[in-house]
Amino acid sequence: MIIVLKKNATPQEIDHICTKVRELGLTPNVSRGVERVVIGVIGDEEKLQVQPLEVFPGVEHVMSILKPYKLASRDYRTENSEFEMNHGVKVGGKKIVVMAGPCSVENYDMLLNVAKAVKKSGASFLRGGAFKPRTSPYSFQGLGEEGLKYLRQAADETGLLVCTEVMDTRQVELVSQYADMLQIGARNMQNFDLLKECGISKKPVLLKRGLSATVKDLLMSAEYLLSKGNFKVMLCERGIRTFETSTRNTLDLNAIPVIKKETHLPVLVDPSHGTGFRDYVAPMAMAGVAAGCDGLMVEVHECPEEAKSDGEQSLRPKQFDELMAKARAVARAVGRDI
Amino acid sequence: MIIVLKKNATPQEIDHICTKVRELGLTPNVSRGVERVVIGVIGDEEKLQVQPLEVFPGVEHVMSILKPYKLASRDYRTENSEFEMNHGVKVGGKKIVVMAGPCSVENYDMLLNVAKAVKKSGASFLRGGAFKPRTSPYSFQGLGEEGLKYLRQAADETGLLVCTEVMDTRQVELVSQYADMLQIGARNMQNFDLLKECGISKKPVLLKRGLSATVKDLLMSAEYLLSKGNFKVMLCERGIRTFETSTRNTLDLNAIPVIKKETHLPVLVDPSHGTGFRDYVAPMAMAGVAAGCDGLMVEVHECPEEAKSDGEQSLRPKQFDELMAKARAVARAVGRDI
Amino acid sequence: MIIVLKKNATPQEIDHICTKVRELGLTPNVSRGVERVVIGVIGDEEKLQVQPLEVFPGVEHVMSILKPYKLASRDYRTENSEFEMNHGVKVGGKKIVVMAGPCSVENYDMLLNVAKAVKKSGASFLRGGAFKPRTSPYSFQGLGEEGLKYLRQAADETGLLVCTEVMDTRQVELVSQYADMLQIGARNMQNFDLLKECGISKKPVLLKRGLSATVKDLLMSAEYLLSKGNFKVMLCERGIRTFETSTRNTLDLNAIPVIKKETHLPVLVDPSHGTGFRDYVAPMAMAGVAAGCDGLMVEVHECPEEAKSDGEQSLRPKQFDELMAKARAVARAVGRDI
Amino acid sequence: MIIVLKKNATPQEIDHICTKVRELGLTPNVSRGVERVVIGVIGDEEKLQVQPLEVFPGVEHVMSILKPYKLASRDYRTENSEFEMNHGVKVGGKKIVVMAGPCSVENYDMLLNVAKAVKKSGASFLRGGAFKPRTSPYSFQGLGEEGLKYLRQAADETGLLVCTEVMDTRQVELVSQYADMLQIGARNMQNFDLLKECGISKKPVLLKRGLSATVKDLLMSAEYLLSKGNFKVMLCERGIRTFETSTRNTLDLNAIPVIKKETHLPVLVDPSHGTGFRDYVAPMAMAGVAAGCDGLMVEVHECPEEAKSDGEQSLRPKQFDELMAKARAVARAVGRDI
Repeated sequence: MIIVLKKNATPQEIDHICTKVRELGLTPNVSRGVERVVIGVIGDEEKLQVQPLEVFPGVEHVMSILKPYKLASRDYRTENSEFEMNHGVKVGGKKIVVMAGPCSVENYDMLLNVAKAVKKSGASFLRGGAFKPRTSPYSFQGLGEEGLKYLRQAADETGLLVCTEVMDTRQVELVSQYADMLQIGARNMQNFDLLKECGISKKPVLLKRGLSATVKDLLMSAEYLLSKGNFKVMLCERGIRTFETSTRNTLDLNAIPVIKKETHLPVLVDPSHGTGFRDYVAPMAMAGVAAGCDGLMVEVHECPEEAKSDGEQSLRPKQFDELMAKARAVARAVGRDI
Repeated sequence: MIIVLKKNATPQEIDHICTKVRELGLTPNVSRGVERVVIGVIGDEEKLQVQPLEVFPGVEHVMSILKPYKLASRDYRTENSEFEMNHGVKVGGKKIVVMAGPCSVENYDMLLNVAKAVKKSGASFLRGGAFKPRTSPYSFQGLGEEGLKYLRQAADETGLLVCTEVMDTRQVELVSQYADMLQIGARNMQNFDLLKECGISKKPVLLKRGLSATVKDLLMSAEYLLSKGNFKVMLCERGIRTFETSTRNTLDLNAIPVIKKETHLPVLVDPSHGTGFRDYVAPMAMAGVAAGCDGLMVEVHECPEEAKSDGEQSLRPKQFDELMAKARAVARAVGRDI
Repeated sequence: MIIVLKKNATPQEIDHICTKVRELGLTPNVSRGVERVVIGVIGDEEKLQVQPLEVFPGVEHVMSILKPYKLASRDYRTENSEFEMNHGVKVGGKKIVVMAGPCSVENYDMLLNVAKAVKKSGASFLRGGAFKPRTSPYSFQGLGEEGLKYLRQAADETGLLVCTEVMDTRQVELVSQYADMLQIGARNMQNFDLLKECGISKKPVLLKRGLSATVKDLLMSAEYLLSKGNFKVMLCERGIRTFETSTRNTLDLNAIPVIKKETHLPVLVDPSHGTGFRDYVAPMAMAGVAAGCDGLMVEVHECPEEAKSDGEQSLRPKQFDELMAKARAVARAVGRDI
Repeated sequence: MIIVLKKNATPQEIDHICTKVRELGLTPNVSRGVERVVIGVIGDEEKLQVQPLEVFPGVEHVMSILKPYKLASRDYRTENSEFEMNHGVKVGGKKIVVMAGPCSVENYDMLLNVAKAVKKSGASFLRGGAFKPRTSPYSFQGLGEEGLKYLRQAADETGLLVCTEVMDTRQVELVSQYADMLQIGARNMQNFDLLKECGISKKPVLLKRGLSATVKDLLMSAEYLLSKGNFKVMLCERGIRTFETSTRNTLDLNAIPVIKKETHLPVLVDPSHGTGFRDYVAPMAMAGVAAGCDGLMVEVHECPEEAKSDGEQSLRPKQFDELMAKARAVARAVGRDI
């Protein structure tokens, strides 16, 4: 922690700060520059997080030296995290995992058809919402447990894994019975009670980046999961909110190399929510692969005209199959597979 | 709903869309312009929300005519909403209500002292967090039920009302036992299950705008509360996330006149979280009053140096008292009181 | 300057950096913390600006201690800057200056009528564009020198000062002949050649904040003017670009107290461009006054229905007169006048 | 143009609008819906751009049907634009063009060495700034004409083309004498006088997207160039400003497929400015190629430790060579070459 003092800070103010720093078991290092006095604090920076040094008289601002996340950082674990799931699916390995399926689970037959199609094209997870976070209370809110049953059944019949959203602490147990991976949606990225419950559950988690979350915020939310002992965490970039309106969100692919540098956790790209338009899904999926992602999540619907949500960003099975062929070519060009 | 077709849309495509519109019980109105064909849809626009018209062949884009919120809109209720609470406090009336107190409840004596001070300066609500949403799992997470008891006791002893945050659906009942008003925090603005529970509870709710929520998003979240029959809702502007870093958030006072135009619900301004720095709280509180807000929420702490959270944005009781005097002068200049 | 090293930085890397720091005539102060080595640099921080320390082996990141602006900072000048203009108008004083007029100069009669009206209501500057920055090449581009003549004539006839935009280095001389104050528009805030020419001209300058400029960026652009010896500079907050679409821009009133803290330069608020809608101009003008601004700029048009630009945000003279009465009440409530 | 009326719009107000529409030579089409009256306007939408319909009594809001750009749109030209330059370089073709070189031109020997290296690795343009837009007036401002001479000489000696920035209308003629392509920087994207001069010059132009410009804004600025008869325009995505701070800007690769859909103009990606950190340049360059870009611009410096600007985002020649090999593999995977 570096404490920068005001130009006119008094010796009394400097002493007051140094005393407080020492009381916390840390060592202050006062450095008198040409225009400012700066106090470096040596010792465990965490101890200072409980102390609002900015409010001490004479302080101009305070700068952290260390990252606030620990278990999520590359300092904690140098090599990439990998974890294995059923059907031999490895998350975080050389092979990029693909999750595909409809936005919402609507009925079983449709779901099974999509599951068969995406499995054939190379997906290893069936995605689909049973509990749906909808902006409007008047929109379709999902089938609930019935939807979970359909997902499980369709996945089992086709040899896929299930990844589906859990929206509320009270649903964690229920969803865990049916799903192989719990998805925490963008709107719940800082629902800290939900993070804690999912951490305790020890189920693999797909943690989506919030619309206005920095990468640092995302890693802090991951830290909630890790600090409860759940290291089976995959991050998801799905677009942030910016001033640009030609896409639904701004898929921030820069986050991929940043995440790869900062953390050992695997990261997946969701170009369907990230762009909001069918035509942009394939180029951004390929770009995500080229940027180094470990997974893709794509909305696929048999008949987007009839979809109860997100029809405009869903691919038909045939379009998904074409996307997979293109993404595979890019994956091989960068030394991966899909 | 206005459907704009592609330049090269075929008669078959136009027919296909019109057929679908009619199937939904609506009337299509085809208008052939110089460069584009446009289909206006007459009837209840809501019926079209389940139908992703963007994906129909030949469609370029679709534009809504109506706002997606109903009960929250000025169309539904022309006059301002007001509701009365204990101690004769009226929310949404001529008098601007003020909520003040520490960021977190830390201990009873401190809380009682602050309560006495802010009451004396003219506040009518005691604010303070018992359940704290913290970015880091390693930060102080609040005192829980003990904190709620302290709040209730300090408020009762001083004649204040309690407004405190509820973070999780499982806490709604408990918090309702102690609080006069439930606060839904910015990070939970789109925690739809929590919105539903708070709607059902019928307790007055302070709904904070999310960091990346448009005013429209905020009103849609309010709609969740209203649609469950709870009309005792006050909105809160507390800063949005932008590229600017000289303030913690960008307090968006434009939202005040926009909200006043779009909805009948009262709106409060939180300059403490909105700016993140003590020096900016008073000017922005006064600006909020001048812009037409119905309430202020201000963090006050006896000794910000010892605060367990948000010390850098907390005012001391004396500074709060000065702020109240200034805000009162502005309130009177705009025909209000405080 | 604080140089934070990587966890695994070698003694050779540390030596290499210290050598370079000493070569620049500065003193390195190496501090070995628990997790990181940090090098504080003592001496004139500016010398390091030419040296990209981030790229030195072993460096994790570099943090500045000082602000990059000098002449614009409160360190350089503690008291508020004021400057006097013709007709006894003082910019930066107790009285808030008001600039009003049409977006574009369209014809002389209209301009004179507006000038008379706004003068009567208390404005001291006539604003209006002769050279117009338009997003579309097909929109009205302004009357050019003819417009400048009209402005000068209407101002002289009514006892007002002229503030008008200069868009290009080649226009500085011409515009200076007619105008009392040169406006540098938001889109040109970082047109550095234009800043230099306006600095050299020594004419008073109104410098508008760019749509994506931080307050720091704005002060750096002001520094271009000041470093050429032109201290007659007024800053202007006119809205930044965010994700919110219910207003044309997001008028960032937080910038007022931030600017007041960081710099001695006066600051004006433009609620017309800041919000883009007539209904929001008066509340945001009042809020700007309450937040502590030194000036207001308001678009006024006799007949907004016929305006060649920005009609939707223009007030009629009668509405402007009402705004002035309200703003005056707020100004007095905060110890100012208008 | 679609005019949506207020709920309580009167027949007189509707008539007043229809009369005005007819006066402009257009046909109003009044459609009475369940909750709102809507007026569709048939005829040349451009005629309405001079008329601020939002301010007419009874109007709630106005929605455009057509895009505001014409010559830049796919409606105007369906196939991709290509243009040929010296040394047989084709911009917009199957082969992705690469521009590389130092941020600033600093001295001839260094420039020549870099030019030789990047030519060998496959670049076809030498980039480098002679006139530098610097945030601080105290930073290195470029060598001016001397820098242009160095660029020309180094390019001629190595068989490269020159792309360099022009910052001011007064420099267009001079820069045109030395450069093969004029670069308009992000900060000048809406310097409309500069756009006009570059349009008139007929020199090929690289137009960089502004930090807060939407794709639509970028295309409107391109329209300035095209409307002056200059169709040799290449667009450049170089990062937008968002709340994220882990990268210098947010390189918005979504813009690539959006631009490809909306316009026939070629588009280049600048991952150096887009990310601001050396480690992120290669992954984002590869992602840009996978997303479908037609060009890459990369900062290369012999010794980033000594660079007078942007050292932290510059690659060494060896790193650039590695990037080119990787980008080539991705290009071939998507049916392109580099």
